[in-house]
Amino acid sequence: MDEVQKMMYQAPDAEGKVNFVNLYDLEDMAKKVIPEGGYGYISSGAGDLWTIEQNIKSFNHKVIVPRVLADIEHPDMSTEIFGDKLSLPVIMAPVASHGLAHVKGEVATAKGIAESDTIFTISSYANKPFKDISSAGKGAPQWFQFYMSKDDGINRDILDEAKANGMKAIVLTADATVGGNREMDKRTGFVFPLGMPIVSAYQSGVGQNMDAVYGSSKQKLSPRDVEFIAEYSGLPVFVKGVQCAEDAHVAMESGAGGVWVTNHGGRQVDGGRPAFDSLSEVAEAVNKQVPVVFDSGVRRGTHVFKAIAQGADLVAIGRPVLYSLALGGSEGVKQVFDFFKEELAKTMQLAGTHNVEEIKKATLSNYPWA
Amino acid sequence: MDEVQKMMYQAPDAEGKVNFVNLYDLEDMAKKVIPEGGYGYISSGAGDLWTIEQNIKSFNHKVIVPRVLADIEHPDMSTEIFGDKLSLPVIMAPVASHGLAHVKGEVATAKGIAESDTIFTISSYANKPFKDISSAGKGAPQWFQFYMSKDDGINRDILDEAKANGMKAIVLTADATVGGNREMDKRTGFVFPLGMPIVSAYQSGVGQNMDAVYGSSKQKLSPRDVEFIAEYSGLPVFVKGVQCAEDAHVAMESGAGGVWVTNHGGRQVDGGRPAFDSLSEVAEAVNKQVPVVFDSGVRRGTHVFKAIAQGADLVAIGRPVLYSLALGGSEGVKQVFDFFKEELAKTMQLAGTHNVEEIKKATLSNYPWA
Amino acid sequence: MDEVQKMMYQAPDAEGKVNFVNLYDLEDMAKKVIPEGGYGYISSGAGDLWTIEQNIKSFNHKVIVPRVLADIEHPDMSTEIFGDKLSLPVIMAPVASHGLAHVKGEVATAKGIAESDTIFTISSYANKPFKDISSAGKGAPQWFQFYMSKDDGINRDILDEAKANGMKAIVLTADATVGGNREMDKRTGFVFPLGMPIVSAYQSGVGQNMDAVYGSSKQKLSPRDVEFIAEYSGLPVFVKGVQCAEDAHVAMESGAGGVWVTNHGGRQVDGGRPAFDSLSEVAEAVNKQVPVVFDSGVRRGTHVFKAIAQGADLVAIGRPVLYSLALGGSEGVKQVFDFFKEELAKTMQLAGTHNVEEIKKATLSNYPWA
Amino acid sequence: MDEVQKMMYQAPDAEGKVNFVNLYDLEDMAKKVIPEGGYGYISSGAGDLWTIEQNIKSFNHKVIVPRVLADIEHPDMSTEIFGDKLSLPVIMAPVASHGLAHVKGEVATAKGIAESDTIFTISSYANKPFKDISSAGKGAPQWFQFYMSKDDGINRDILDEAKANGMKAIVLTADATVGGNREMDKRTGFVFPLGMPIVSAYQSGVGQNMDAVYGSSKQKLSPRDVEFIAEYSGLPVFVKGVQCAEDAHVAMESGAGGVWVTNHGGRQVDGGRPAFDSLSEVAEAVNKQVPVVFDSGVRRGTHVFKAIAQGADLVAIGRPVLYSLALGGSEGVKQVFDFFKEELAKTMQLAGTHNVEEIKKATLSNYPWA
Repeated sequence: MDEVQKMMYQAPDAEGKVNFVNLYDLEDMAKKVIPEGGYGYISSGAGDLWTIEQNIKSFNHKVIVPRVLADIEHPDMSTEIFGDKLSLPVIMAPVASHGLAHVKGEVATAKGIAESDTIFTISSYANKPFKDISSAGKGAPQWFQFYMSKDDGINRDILDEAKANGMKAIVLTADATVGGNREMDKRTGFVFPLGMPIVSAYQSGVGQNMDAVYGSSKQKLSPRDVEFIAEYSGLPVFVKGVQCAEDAHVAMESGAGGVWVTNHGGRQVDGGRPAFDSLSEVAEAVNKQVPVVFDSGVRRGTHVFKAIAQGADLVAIGRPVLYSLALGGSEGVKQVFDFFKEELAKTMQLAGTHNVEEIKKATLSNYPWA
Repeated sequence: MDEVQKMMYQAPDAEGKVNFVNLYDLEDMAKKVIPEGGYGYISSGAGDLWTIEQNIKSFNHKVIVPRVLADIEHPDMSTEIFGDKLSLPVIMAPVASHGLAHVKGEVATAKGIAESDTIFTISSYANKPFKDISSAGKGAPQWFQFYMSKDDGINRDILDEAKANGMKAIVLTADATVGGNREMDKRTGFVFPLGMPIVSAYQSGVGQNMDAVYGSSKQKLSPRDVEFIAEYSGLPVFVKGVQCAEDAHVAMESGAGGVWVTNHGGRQVDGGRPAFDSLSEVAEAVNKQVPVVFDSGVRRGTHVFKAIAQGADLVAIGRPVLYSLALGGSEGVKQVFDFFKEELAKTMQLAGTHNVEEIKKATLSNYPWA
Repeated sequence: MDEVQKMMYQAPDAEGKVNFVNLYDLEDMAKKVIPEGGYGYISSGAGDLWTIEQNIKSFNHKVIVPRVLADIEHPDMSTEIFGDKLSLPVIMAPVASHGLAHVKGEVATAKGIAESDTIFTISSYANKPFKDISSAGKGAPQWFQFYMSKDDGINRDILDEAKANGMKAIVLTADATVGGNREMDKRTGFVFPLGMPIVSAYQSGVGQNMDAVYGSSKQKLSPRDVEFIAEYSGLPVFVKGVQCAEDAHVAMESGAGGVWVTNHGGRQVDGGRPAFDSLSEVAEAVNKQVPVVFDSGVRRGTHVFKAIAQGADLVAIGRPVLYSLALGGSEGVKQVFDFFKEELAKTMQLAGTHNVEEIKKATLSNYPWA
Repeated sequence: MDEVQKMMYQAPDAEGKVNFVNLYDLEDMAKKVIPEGGYGYISSGAGDLWTIEQNIKSFNHKVIVPRVLADIEHPDMSTEIFGDKLSLPVIMAPVASHGLAHVKGEVATAKGIAESDTIFTISSYANKPFKDISSAGKGAPQWFQFYMSKDDGINRDILDEAKANGMKAIVLTADATVGGNREMDKRTGFVFPLGMPIVSAYQSGVGQNMDAVYGSSKQKLSPRDVEFIAEYSGLPVFVKGVQCAEDAHVAMESGAGGVWVTNHGGRQVDGGRPAFDSLSEVAEAVNKQVPVVFDSGVRRGTHVFKAIAQGADLVAIGRPVLYSLALGGSEGVKQVFDFFKEELAKTMQLAGTHNVEEIKKATLSNYPWA
């Protein structure tokens, strides 16, 4: 994007039902309506794109073994976290800058997610004011993903605002203390075209590339930051980016109220382990002391099933929601969760699991040929 | 298919010898003569088609180790089940709606299979009346695949009809209590264009999609249904869809007279284990107490050999028979079994196995690179 | 090939140096000069061609670990078997009907091989008279591959002729008691266009397809046949087609003077184990009691090195020699062995092995990712 | 290259900044500016190119497990060897004939590397005089890669010159006592178009192919050569080409001051083990007694990270530097090291490693599906 394009970034403004069969359809369709730089930023990953591709493929490292004669009809997909009831164990992962996908940005996303009776994790790098997003999501729990400032005074202000807006948990992103090696952004010359009001106190905003944006937030994250946030906010704090047992222990010892297993959608370390392959190790270390959320590469109801069977309590999705947001606004957002409801219900029925707790007890079989 | 197409579904009516070298040829040829919606319904599988593809590829997870100097000529392929002698250990799996492939539907299939001296498993969702199918198959054993009604009175009536028509066994399909995620059917807009007379008491019929059809049958299958069918019919009952040792035990404890290992041809749970990989686990659990039938992905005499070496007593085939039915009617059907006879005979000879019992003792070698 | 083509099969008659860098070049070039049916017969394999492809790929299941500082220059490739000294541990495998590749057939092959100072294994299904082939190969040892007649009188006559022509060993092909499933031959309608004088007493010859030709030889091979040949001929007898330890024991107990590990170039059982993967198991069973010959998929000096490191005493090649015969007559044949001399010498030097005995002690490393 | 081309080999003479995102871009761009024969010689590998391809792919046999909350900003990439401080743990591998890539040859390379504060390993087959190269690299350590003459008098003279030019270590290439099977050079008819002044006493030079050039140097390398060089030069001697524990022991017992793990960039033994897969075995054998250098297939900062985590002290690169030399002269050379600095810094930050010593303690996870 050259300077002129940057100034005149034209995000889609579509509203209404999107016609898709699966989420790969959505990706193809979204590519045609989101401006190149924005689409590249959303869709791509680090380096040779090996890890981002393996994220999806790695779900085949474990295969489902369907069970029969289980006396099931209409399996129960609902679940609960921190006292909030959700219609399905799939929530919205934090994703920066929904304004790249739709002029209504996070406001439309919040609306669609609230209508899906699940959780929206609002990114620090949202393009809409905190209050507008939380208002749009009324009736559904919201969490706040935190990129900390280097200044603790600013951090306190942001946490105050998060609490004022009713956030139920704080998600500390710990796996992005610098931007990953995003070659697509180098090729398109991508810079963020829109402001980020939640962090405007430390983030100057429009026209900066990803390295500059990450550079303005805090790099030297440590267990003390988890303690600080937990203590100051009084809210459960997820450490996001945990990929091994050791870090699960570090997080819990720091007072984390949850552990979020992810490799940031393959956007940070190429040649890093696919997120699904890290899940069981982390879940075993956590040992049900705190909730485990999983994301990275989830595109199917069967992926949700497998992640829960490997130890996740909740599964988060990201890119597909942005694509559907671009194509249909809040209605598109809701359709993505409807898609997961349909696929997960079928999978649960055919796998012989009456509810989410039974998925957790389902056995997956190793698949060394994948 | 739009409304007009649906009304005027034009199934092939070819009769006579089909010119093919292998079953992949048949698939290519059949695609040209079966209407798009029907071909899509028959040929496709669930989700990303991973499991359906792995079903065939997974036969390479185990390799044949040929034996020499075994003093063999003309190996004996015949076998026996429930007192019926078969010319080869390959039978016809239940497949819905043969009328999609040929105007004569299951009547032509029954004829071709009877001439092959093997078993036809008649689907509940057949398009021809029970009596016509059983008459056409005279001289050969037939089994009945049962999709139960939610009403036990209807179930008793259907079982009465099955017995009246001479069925030798009942096959309870337990892996399809809802339809799988068949995206091809969504893309073509497939609805069943033809009636299903055997289950007309609970199945309203023409113009419904697969979800509606499955929805009208019983979802909450349990061990009690196996007991009910066995007791009421007095016939051996196969539980079809068993993919692990636990379910083999459940089936046998419920009085099953046989266990049928399958993943429904990759049509139900994508990301599920390839059926061949489940076979040895199930066969070991069954431990020869009841017969084991295997299907899913069988396209070669070597596949039949491998399945039997892994513990199957009989191997069932499905799609290829529909393709050859479309291309040549009953004669085409018979040719598919001739194809297996030729390939299996060669394989038995070269593997040093005189008969089916010796195949069961043959050792396959693991192939981790497949 | 239709009837007219069959009658006028036009084999190449080229003579002189062939311009190739590797054996895949040869295959591409030969395809252009050998008539379609003949090329298809020579080049193809069984079924889905999986085993024939894995034959070559499987060499990567084990990788060479080069050694340094080994004080080597001009490694010694020579070896010895049954008192005959060879210039390299690579010999000619038996291949039927060289007349398909060149008008001079086995006479030209014998000449090129003799000039390479190695062994020609003459096929029972050669197109030239025994005496002509043995004369052309003067100065080099020759072995005779035996497809037995069903009539032991004929067998004695053929063995008498083999001895009269100076054969040093008999190779009993035990893995081809029926023809494999060669679909290419079905597609081209291949029939053998040329007579087979060595076995003319039981083989009627021209115009028959492979199934008919194999059908006229003996199917019911057993250990007694090994005993019979060894006793009657007084020559060492290789059992060709041994792929597991059990059959190695059977062969040796029957008096075999050698064991030949092969899967017949992937032409017999598709889905069978790649030959290289069977080698170490057989070699361990043989335990140096008799020589082990290996073939199937050998296209590189590194393949020869790996096969010897896994337990082979000699490595045999087939198709590439036919291709070069088609392109350059006897000179082309010699070039193939020169190719192996160059590649094997480089490999031995770089792997730190002074001679063939040291190759046998070289360690290969497992490669599970191949 | 025919005779005329050989005489008029036109190497690039570009100077200035090169516009690339990653090293694969560089390769594509360099292919357009380096004459065909020269590009083929630089870029290609042995035989079927399997090992050269696996060299890069094999880095995925082990995956990085990122760590969080590690309290890091600006990780320290500097390291030290033999008292020399380097800005990063990446050095220049010895590569013959830089004059193929640029008219200024090794003089430009030396300048770019010195500006990168790292080590240039000068090849015996350099195209520029020793003095010119060492002068151009002032301010940075240089090592000398030695292809020995068959004449020890000449060897002493060359070592004298190396010491006179300030070389800090001698690298004895032990894995190239003959040229590998480079088919690309056969196809292009490549001969070296430029003189090799450092070894002019035994190497007649221009117009010879690789086999002739290697043939003029010493083949029979042994532990005595390591002893000789170490004793005569008083410098640390690396044995280059060590790929297993046994050879690491041989090298160290011969007085080697370092071990260099490489498979010569996949140029020598095709079907040989990918170099990365040999690294941990060698490093364990070396057990920190001497430094370990690694090369072959390094194209990413993540590759550098993985190699160090597997036991390398330094990582060497080759082809990419030649490509960038061709495109931008000394400035291009420097850019390649800048590229590694950027990627390695990001990787270290995201993997939670403060410095090179911490990389050595990082755990990689096995990845059997790669």
